[in-house]
Amino acid sequence: MTLERPNIARMHGYTPGEQPDAATTIKLNTNENPYPPSPQVAAALAAIDIASLRRYPPPLATPFRQAASAYHGISPDNIVATNGGDELLRLAITTFVDSGETIVTTQPSYSLYPVLADVQSCQLVELPLDDDWRMPQDFLAGAIAAQAKMIILVNPHAPTGCLLPATYLAQLASAFSGVLLVDEAYVDFVDPELGYDSVALIREHENILILRTMSKGYSLAGLRFGYGIGAASLINPMLYKTRDSYNTDFIAQRLATAAIESVDYARNTWRQVREQRSRLREGLNALGLGTGDSQSNFLLATIPDAIGAETLYKQLKAHHILVRYFDQPRLRDKLRITVGSAEENQTLLQTLRALLGQ
Amino acid sequence: MTLERPNIARMHGYTPGEQPDAATTIKLNTNENPYPPSPQVAAALAAIDIASLRRYPPPLATPFRQAASAYHGISPDNIVATNGGDELLRLAITTFVDSGETIVTTQPSYSLYPVLADVQSCQLVELPLDDDWRMPQDFLAGAIAAQAKMIILVNPHAPTGCLLPATYLAQLASAFSGVLLVDEAYVDFVDPELGYDSVALIREHENILILRTMSKGYSLAGLRFGYGIGAASLINPMLYKTRDSYNTDFIAQRLATAAIESVDYARNTWRQVREQRSRLREGLNALGLGTGDSQSNFLLATIPDAIGAETLYKQLKAHHILVRYFDQPRLRDKLRITVGSAEENQTLLQTLRALLGQ
Repeated sequence: MTLERPNIARMHGYTPGEQPDAATTIKLNTNENPYPPSPQVAAALAAIDIASLRRYPPPLATPFRQAASAYHGISPDNIVATNGGDELLRLAITTFVDSGETIVTTQPSYSLYPVLADVQSCQLVELPLDDDWRMPQDFLAGAIAAQAKMIILVNPHAPTGCLLPATYLAQLASAFSGVLLVDEAYVDFVDPELGYDSVALIREHENILILRTMSKGYSLAGLRFGYGIGAASLINPMLYKTRDSYNTDFIAQRLATAAIESVDYARNTWRQVREQRSRLREGLNALGLGTGDSQSNFLLATIPDAIGAETLYKQLKAHHILVRYFDQPRLRDKLRITVGSAEENQTLLQTLRALLGQ
Repeated sequence: MTLERPNIARMHGYTPGEQPDAATTIKLNTNENPYPPSPQVAAALAAIDIASLRRYPPPLATPFRQAASAYHGISPDNIVATNGGDELLRLAITTFVDSGETIVTTQPSYSLYPVLADVQSCQLVELPLDDDWRMPQDFLAGAIAAQAKMIILVNPHAPTGCLLPATYLAQLASAFSGVLLVDEAYVDFVDPELGYDSVALIREHENILILRTMSKGYSLAGLRFGYGIGAASLINPMLYKTRDSYNTDFIAQRLATAAIESVDYARNTWRQVREQRSRLREGLNALGLGTGDSQSNFLLATIPDAIGAETLYKQLKAHHILVRYFDQPRLRDKLRITVGSAEENQTLLQTLRALLGQ
């Protein structure tokens, strides 16, 4: 007996990156920030009165939305708080894409998108990036030809770390009649000198929805807190209709608010990650594991065929170092490596040097 | 410009009960437990290391599922942990009911069900309870005639507090080919002498899905933690496919685990709530506000027309006492009143006495 909907019975679930119990594992596989959350977050945790958990949390997470809107220079009406960035992705699809309709993304991209499309019985059309991981010239034409209701772009891109300029997003949004969802899970690690700013676009483009998360930039992956930014008309149905009625909890709201109010602390970790990213990239390239420029907190290294990416992944795992191997087209000769702390990166490079016999 | 799916554009969202900021409000409107969470939950909160939030939580919440399965005498494979009971309701509909298909429930029932059905583009057929709030004799026939894929029953019933026996649920599940979702949000407050036990039914009935929540019985509404219980074949697609990949956070998992491991503390609060429920019922009846038997932590009082339920709701609110008024058929002469602490209930009864001139 199967009681599932036919599309659920057919589909495969998402495989999360390994989460080892051992604290001794060097974990460079799921892009966590190597530095701890801010002292203000610790203070907010210490200030939680257990008796206050007896009551329901603010349903709209308004205190957080006020803090986030102050940070971004927008209105709380432009923000919906979610149980991690994942919830925003699901909510956006639930709200804007009917079963049978089409979502367009790039190939490769975040491997959760196909799963979410399956759950909603949507089509996911994946348009290939070019050989240098750039957007193909005919991406917009392809999306229109596919009758896309939504385009999802992860920017900076995962798993390559490439950044699209905001001007490109603005052009795409102008020419596209559906929702352009920009998944900015890794945006905090973009070099500030590039002046990337997509949030300003929401004033002109009612169809741009931006995903932000506290998981990476604010070192709070364990907390499950994210948010969406967009025109109030785009945010409203998620805020008042499709969201679970109390989707974020009291403690997470308090800690996320403290994190965004102490963004200067987080910003310092972003600077350190960028410095480590440069050094790690140099180290990997020196070992012959070619990696391109990344504006994220990970690097995509190409592993020579003589070694083999999957083999190297397993060898590293045997040395208690986890990186991410994707058994997917175009990625089977790559490893995605999270930028860790200086010490973690050094251990990784030393281990690689030994494994490669260099 | 509207970018929403047509069913989302048409629908109305759920209206949560008021959550006043003022700590001085006597809050008897959203069925929170009047007693604080257990000391073990406080200890678990104090033991959280802020640095551990840097990493993703256990994706399947396995430590919690192990603790809950030990409590219920079942396997962790029979349990899916969710971000509040609300998430289980949504997941169940997402997983088992296609757009255009039908869910059957009773009228009246929990006012979130129509909202969730709207989001999934389902039909919700509400079959009226009889004049004594009992299940109509022809309920099953009505569900079959409506070609229901799912039946949702809240047991004990909200907002009346009536309890269906497990034998009725077993008969229904045997005769019904879809999923029978039993929403047991309030089950912890059932008189133990009644011997109600639906969990045992999952061994015989692969189509029974039981909802449990930590919000009421464990005084953790602020935490957002619930779980589903069912045959592994029923739980599996929610656990591995339709659930957001990290749907419950690290702190909530830890605190919920501590709560269920210290169930004896919670059980003592359930006993106190039952005692207070008897006294409050007597007090309301003595004031001419007739209330029936309730196996939940609330009472449904009938307000004489000469006073008016909405009027009395507003008068109580002016006295900083919140109760729940439903502007719905069959409920417009009722108020749903959460059983509070002895002191809260006494203040309520004194205020009512004064308002009613008695």
